[in-house]
Amino acid sequence: MRLSRYFLPVLKETPSEAQIASHRLMLRAGMIKQQTAGIYSWLPLGFKVLRRIEQIVHEEQIRAGHIPMLMPTLQPADLWRESGRYDDYGEEMLRIRDRHGRDMLYGPTNEEMITDIFRAHVGSYKDLPLTLYHIQWKFRDEIRPRFGVMRGREFFMKDGYNFDLDYESAMHAYNRHMVSYLRSYERMGLQAIPMRADSGPIGGDDTHEFLVLADTGESEVFYDSAITDLRLGDREIDYDDWDEVAAICKEWTTPYARTDETHDAAQFDALPDERRKTSRGIEVGQIFYFGTKYSEPMGATVQDREGNKVAVHMGSHGIGVSRLVGAIIEANHDDKGIIWPEGVTPFHAGIVNLKQGDAEADAACEDLYAALVSAGLEPLYDDREERAGAKFATMDLVGVPWRITVGPRGMKNGVVELTSRRSGESEELAPELAVTRLKEIYAGHL
Amino acid sequence: MRLSRYFLPVLKETPSEAQIASHRLMLRAGMIKQQTAGIYSWLPLGFKVLRRIEQIVHEEQIRAGHIPMLMPTLQPADLWRESGRYDDYGEEMLRIRDRHGRDMLYGPTNEEMITDIFRAHVGSYKDLPLTLYHIQWKFRDEIRPRFGVMRGREFFMKDGYNFDLDYESAMHAYNRHMVSYLRSYERMGLQAIPMRADSGPIGGDDTHEFLVLADTGESEVFYDSAITDLRLGDREIDYDDWDEVAAICKEWTTPYARTDETHDAAQFDALPDERRKTSRGIEVGQIFYFGTKYSEPMGATVQDREGNKVAVHMGSHGIGVSRLVGAIIEANHDDKGIIWPEGVTPFHAGIVNLKQGDAEADAACEDLYAALVSAGLEPLYDDREERAGAKFATMDLVGVPWRITVGPRGMKNGVVELTSRRSGESEELAPELAVTRLKEIYAGHL
Repeated sequence: MRLSRYFLPVLKETPSEAQIASHRLMLRAGMIKQQTAGIYSWLPLGFKVLRRIEQIVHEEQIRAGHIPMLMPTLQPADLWRESGRYDDYGEEMLRIRDRHGRDMLYGPTNEEMITDIFRAHVGSYKDLPLTLYHIQWKFRDEIRPRFGVMRGREFFMKDGYNFDLDYESAMHAYNRHMVSYLRSYERMGLQAIPMRADSGPIGGDDTHEFLVLADTGESEVFYDSAITDLRLGDREIDYDDWDEVAAICKEWTTPYARTDETHDAAQFDALPDERRKTSRGIEVGQIFYFGTKYSEPMGATVQDREGNKVAVHMGSHGIGVSRLVGAIIEANHDDKGIIWPEGVTPFHAGIVNLKQGDAEADAACEDLYAALVSAGLEPLYDDREERAGAKFATMDLVGVPWRITVGPRGMKNGVVELTSRRSGESEELAPELAVTRLKEIYAGHL
Repeated sequence: MRLSRYFLPVLKETPSEAQIASHRLMLRAGMIKQQTAGIYSWLPLGFKVLRRIEQIVHEEQIRAGHIPMLMPTLQPADLWRESGRYDDYGEEMLRIRDRHGRDMLYGPTNEEMITDIFRAHVGSYKDLPLTLYHIQWKFRDEIRPRFGVMRGREFFMKDGYNFDLDYESAMHAYNRHMVSYLRSYERMGLQAIPMRADSGPIGGDDTHEFLVLADTGESEVFYDSAITDLRLGDREIDYDDWDEVAAICKEWTTPYARTDETHDAAQFDALPDERRKTSRGIEVGQIFYFGTKYSEPMGATVQDREGNKVAVHMGSHGIGVSRLVGAIIEANHDDKGIIWPEGVTPFHAGIVNLKQGDAEADAACEDLYAALVSAGLEPLYDDREERAGAKFATMDLVGVPWRITVGPRGMKNGVVELTSRRSGESEELAPELAVTRLKEIYAGHL
């Protein structure tokens, strides 16, 4: 993308309404615009990041054997009357009446609807196990929306639902979700720690939430530092292997890690001093096993092997896709702006032309641009007639992880400068080598 | 995908509520489930097709130089009060009040919001031309929703908005949209004819709608048969070349083609007998130029070269993404079911194992499956223990355009059968050659 043709409305001033770094930076980098309290437009740069995250979530869910579909944003109230949650949910549920006076609502979650789909179409244990998910806009009428997309009212979320014949199979689904979530976060450059949690309004027996460590997190967290050394890396995972998946979950849930809600001071204090850590955390996902809580009242049953009608065991599993954009920025920024992890960056490399309008410099930049595109990378080329300082500041603010600077001095020697946004380190090398380096850097991310 | 692990709830009976082929077939093929009047869940097969169409629209919009972003589904009523449409829009607008009593609405379209974004961020002619678009869920509270996703209440639509300094530049944007739309429809296997139209509630001077010929169309159409011979094919189009783009539009708008709303009997009657055609048509898109209709009341102005403040020239351009799923089926089906065009098919090829459980047959199918996947194709493998007739019927119903049948007789001779869903013709060939053939068939579609 050439910046002269893009829509990247960066702001010079820090918006006064933004209290935390991610909100401030998303506004300054031209990623979002607030349309009313807690409701945002995703401007082109923000939309690109949102899509990258959505894509990672899709890929990892499909890899785990979960099936994508899409439920609507609006739901009939009757479904929620069946489960008994219509009255329970309170003012956070956005209730709507259509032109015929029918009660509807903007879905805050989809347990009822997915259970309705299941009971309409599935009748035999032979169709199990089954995990369906979707990534869709949801609404929660927060009394005080704040922190930008981190606590918005209209938000984009992946929610998945497993249907299993028995507890053991449902626990395997639970474990599959834990592992696929860990993988998703890792690909986004995040370390998210699974912590045993309270179940809240969804209800349930087993539940973990995933927290990213960041000073602005809403929860206080207590953890054994051993957990922050764990990585999935590129290990092959067979999601059909119950033991293998369970072993990974055990690895990640054995070190102590709790939020203030479930904190057990005695267990924590038993850890060696140097491993006892406290911090703040941002919740970016949660998984639940809740058994027959919805299948029983709503009649989601199957015939088992013996011909008995049994209610299916269910769980639900969510990742906050729009919230993750904020969480990633909270964990990856400095005074100058955002620092995108390679897995989610909206552009793979920035090209800064120090002598815009000079035929030779322009040609060198165009060549680089074409070489990056043909390598499958997306460059952001600052082709405006601006001074170097302003171009560098824009690239730093919007967080492009690698910058190639093309200047008259380097061109005399046949080199360009490749700079890491994260370390600030630069190296001079031939343009072809810069492209090769970037291909290597992004090899695992394309 | 292995059918034994998929969620494809096909129906044996024809649902009585469905009046037209696409609605009937989408229900029977397990593509959608109605949740309440005019609101549907997209089951896995339906969601796959929806995504393919969305992807084509994105690719062709980006190719034309238009920039993707995303606006929210809910909008503040105040924006619509500024343009004067809040009261005009009538009962089709779904009006909502939030917990604080603020008036909101579920967006049926986005002229007001995009104009608000523009005026907040753009101030100079140097930032023009600019075309922004998004693909988002919208709501229109139809009094009698019907025909499945063809006239639903919650629907998925691409809407794009151009901002230009003057009429000429805005007309180039209009033309770019016409050409990029023609290309999108062609990639979906559709012939959509641009017809001069009335502007309706959006208002405007120039407008064309795009109609797909189908017996169930809501409009009567009159056209010169010469237009149905036109194809863009794979011609290279330079979207920056005003003349080239205008010439393509001229090619497509010169032959007579009108709906009953704008029909001119005298012009039509002047055509040679054999070229005078009448039919019915389904609207799948519309483009508008409306000048300063929104920019003036809402204050979307820029400084021009002379320093004068001028209201920008705008247009809006829509493609009905969810509606297209229905329209494609209306134009591509037979008694047995759907016949997907290669460009939008949810699966590229079906594999039918005639002897499930037989070690040799199973191995041959697994090899084929792996070969197709490594060729970048997505097979649907019917690995259930069902009789051949049932497997064929399912493949025909869900519309997979190419079927590979693996049977004991063929295997003795080292061949499988490759069958075209559209022509019904089969050919026997070695499995490797079947994969090669499919790679050729899908070469332009991956």
